[in-house]
Amino acid sequence: MMAVGGIASDVLKQFIERIERLEQEKREISENIKDLFAEAKSGGFEPKIMKQVIRARKMKKEELAEEDALLETYKRAIGLIIE
Amino acid sequence: MMAVGGIASDVLKQFIERIERLEQEKREISENIKDLFAEAKSGGFEPKIMKQVIRARKMKKEELAEEDALLETYKRAIGLIIE
Amino acid sequence: MMAVGGIASDVLKQFIERIERLEQEKREISENIKDLFAEAKSGGFEPKIMKQVIRARKMKKEELAEEDALLETYKRAIGLIIE
Amino acid sequence: MMAVGGIASDVLKQFIERIERLEQEKREISENIKDLFAEAKSGGFEPKIMKQVIRARKMKKEELAEEDALLETYKRAIGLIIE
Repeated sequence: MMAVGGIASDVLKQFIERIERLEQEKREISENIKDLFAEAKSGGFEPKIMKQVIRARKMKKEELAEEDALLETYKRAIGLIIE
Repeated sequence: MMAVGGIASDVLKQFIERIERLEQEKREISENIKDLFAEAKSGGFEPKIMKQVIRARKMKKEELAEEDALLETYKRAIGLIIE
Repeated sequence: MMAVGGIASDVLKQFIERIERLEQEKREISENIKDLFAEAKSGGFEPKIMKQVIRARKMKKEELAEEDALLETYKRAIGLIIE
Repeated sequence: MMAVGGIASDVLKQFIERIERLEQEKREISENIKDLFAEAKSGGFEPKIMKQVIRARKMKKEELAEEDALLETYKRAIGLIIE
């Protein structure tokens, strides 16, 4: 074990390099996601709405229906819905 | 003008202190917003839905109606809506 | 108390408007902070370094000295310091 | 091609599912990074300092040396360094 200033430098370096590789992988995946949204957009889809659908798909259908109903009620109460 | 290492330290300090005061003000406002959501929650309102209403109020009513309609269409297309 | 769909709409509206005002205040302060950094930059200061100083000023001097020493050790261990 | 409300629902679903898989991969990598920092911490390393080293490794050595020197000058000018 190599040590610098009492630090196991080779062990530290391994951790750092493994974390850097994973962070690089994350950046590449983020790029792929961005490309997919761009591809969808050029296919006529709306990324902003797709993101809301992806968020909604993380919820149980009943929960989603409840949230939608409550949002509708709040919007009506605040006068946000064009009658 | 006081200088340290060629840096006008008093001018630098003034900038730093003014920015720190503004950042502190921002933190206090964030706390007030958190308190208001907590107060609304104890009054029976749902902060998560309130945030969606606040987001919606930043949009023109037509834009909002259009977005809601498109979201409904996407949800139906993906089978997210309980018929 | 006005009610829409069982919701006290006037109470909800008050909460929403108070939160919107506070969020607006926060945005204005963020703009002021941005302007100050821009002003400092035109005065020859480096915003990126100023931000590190502001972060450092939140720490006790001993804590800061300790962190600086440890960072120096890690950098040396990883070969980041030009000898 | 299946259509719902004029939307090619099967195409939309494919985009959504591909994006969801990539987002799931990202979450898993974030977990792995968190685990590595935790493992390093239990090995006696400081994640907060490791993150500063990772940030520094993204910079050219000369740039890093320049930034360190300027930060030292600012800290001295503001009285942050215990003489």
